[in-house]
Amino acid sequence: MIRTIAWQDNQVVMIDQRKLPWEEIYVVCSDYRQVIEAIKTMVIRGAPAIGLAAALGAALGAQGIPTKDPEEFRRRFQEICREIGTARPTAVNLAWALEGLLAKAEQAAGRGVGPIKNLLIREARRMLAEDVAVNRALGRAGQEVIRDGDTILTHCNAGALATGGYGTALGVIRAARSAGKKIRVFADETRPFLQGTRLTAWELTRDRIPVTLITDSMAGYFMKKGLIDKVIVGADRIAANGDTANKIGTYSVAVLAKTHGIPFYVAAPCSTIDPRLKTGEAIPIEERDETEVTHWAGQCIAPAGISVLNPAFDVTPASYITGIITERGVLKPPFTRSIREALKGKMKEGRGKKKTDHKGG
Amino acid sequence: MIRTIAWQDNQVVMIDQRKLPWEEIYVVCSDYRQVIEAIKTMVIRGAPAIGLAAALGAALGAQGIPTKDPEEFRRRFQEICREIGTARPTAVNLAWALEGLLAKAEQAAGRGVGPIKNLLIREARRMLAEDVAVNRALGRAGQEVIRDGDTILTHCNAGALATGGYGTALGVIRAARSAGKKIRVFADETRPFLQGTRLTAWELTRDRIPVTLITDSMAGYFMKKGLIDKVIVGADRIAANGDTANKIGTYSVAVLAKTHGIPFYVAAPCSTIDPRLKTGEAIPIEERDETEVTHWAGQCIAPAGISVLNPAFDVTPASYITGIITERGVLKPPFTRSIREALKGKMKEGRGKKKTDHKGG
Repeated sequence: MIRTIAWQDNQVVMIDQRKLPWEEIYVVCSDYRQVIEAIKTMVIRGAPAIGLAAALGAALGAQGIPTKDPEEFRRRFQEICREIGTARPTAVNLAWALEGLLAKAEQAAGRGVGPIKNLLIREARRMLAEDVAVNRALGRAGQEVIRDGDTILTHCNAGALATGGYGTALGVIRAARSAGKKIRVFADETRPFLQGTRLTAWELTRDRIPVTLITDSMAGYFMKKGLIDKVIVGADRIAANGDTANKIGTYSVAVLAKTHGIPFYVAAPCSTIDPRLKTGEAIPIEERDETEVTHWAGQCIAPAGISVLNPAFDVTPASYITGIITERGVLKPPFTRSIREALKGKMKEGRGKKKTDHKGG
Repeated sequence: MIRTIAWQDNQVVMIDQRKLPWEEIYVVCSDYRQVIEAIKTMVIRGAPAIGLAAALGAALGAQGIPTKDPEEFRRRFQEICREIGTARPTAVNLAWALEGLLAKAEQAAGRGVGPIKNLLIREARRMLAEDVAVNRALGRAGQEVIRDGDTILTHCNAGALATGGYGTALGVIRAARSAGKKIRVFADETRPFLQGTRLTAWELTRDRIPVTLITDSMAGYFMKKGLIDKVIVGADRIAANGDTANKIGTYSVAVLAKTHGIPFYVAAPCSTIDPRLKTGEAIPIEERDETEVTHWAGQCIAPAGISVLNPAFDVTPASYITGIITERGVLKPPFTRSIREALKGKMKEGRGKKKTDHKGG
């Protein structure tokens, strides 16, 4: 299994996703500020993985607070969480994970600083283990919509590398494969950061799942040719009505899928749902540095002084989404209702624990 | 003015578009096989420019035929034209230009080899000059559809570099600007070859036309935000019904434009229309080397052994096209009729000369 992130010897260790697929290098963070830097510079990316990095980073930060005073510890820990919380704005998992840890710390407030520090490590590691379990449950639920022989288009990387280690969109594909279905994947290269080329293609090749790499601009061509049966993508934040923020280009893929009558699925754990937002309009869209578009390996590929826009995400309206695959089943439209019910844990496979933590925070 | 290609000292000289925007290097071809190689490796690209390279290349090839025998010259010149004609399959301008030269040679068959060689140079140079004139006429006709203050999205490069030196899609933008309209351009970077980043951005920056560079995957996002007023693209081949082959990704942009109610224009000289093809289904789509997708500056950016598809063009059905901007006016649906009339030279600005040559071939 791919080890995206881990807690090891009181440090946070993560595979450097900027270096894949050329080198498997691990970044070791002994200070929470290094974790923030890793999130900002995309050493680690993908909404669930960012959430886990935030949790492990906060636990790491807690260890370094030089006080025995519970009140000072509390204040300083809140500061650290706030600092980590600003690392990237779009993925809600970051806020969700930090709220979970803060709630744990509050609950244990009477136990003294030392025990709380240990508790925070245990809680962050539990989140990591739970993420993999949730992804596997999501995969099992989602693979029901996949037919033997399907060719599935995915955009960006919603795989093991975007999560604790199994994947959301790619988790569904892995589960379908485990269920004996023959699957072929088309991976959009996903400019500007090339998560498709570098990460999705790498993951699927490792797992011997047939994958064909295309540029983002080719998706419509292959849909028109009838080569794509379904689209499955991940999510960075899902509003209460099902509107979904995901990697820039996802919206274009959704429009193309609808035009060609191809089912379009979002795969994400319930922790990616932000019920505080009624619609996707309110989801903040991160603008990243223009050098991601203009530069390659340090060299500028565009004319000097060119104006560039680099939004990292877009929002796909719920009306373009066939179903939202979660660990609590495949949510169907109208999403306002199905999401509300899933968050209440009313669905068959309901696992309300995570959400309880969230509400507690 | 940008000098894309020229006849100079009995050689064909072209700017190396693979090196832009970093270096302005000119490739000098003294043998027609070098011209073929330049077309294949995209030293020169863009349908009209490829047509001109083919014409100048054929004229160059003719000079080197070592015979005084008219019949042998004829046979060998036909061979050279066939050879050049296979350099790239999608753009019809290549075939059109060669047919024009072959027709000239046939007409002059009685005049002896020496005069025919000179005639072919004159004819190829006339085509080059005419291309610029045609582009300017096309620009004047097309700028009528542009409003002061418009933001125009373009894909790939249909500029001076894609033609004899003024441009089709960018020719319309230049003409609108000359007419005193304030224009802003969004340029898709256009993977895998990055014609948008390297060529369109370079051209427009040189002309001080405001241009914003985005990745191909961002077009839908900015359309949804209401930032794009019109789309104008070039064409590599237009069927009798208006179906248009153009750079891969154009079809996706057309679908997105339709979804957002944004007018979508194709700008191309009448020589890009192939009336022999009823629909776009029959347009051959070139598959290019997968290293264009997987490699960057010689380095592989994808996992080893990855499967890749790299179609260089796609076909946008006529139903997605608001108008086809030609030197004979802006053709409107139903295109089967408006194209037929334009080719008959029945429209106001009719300039039937080119087409006559074509029919003669």
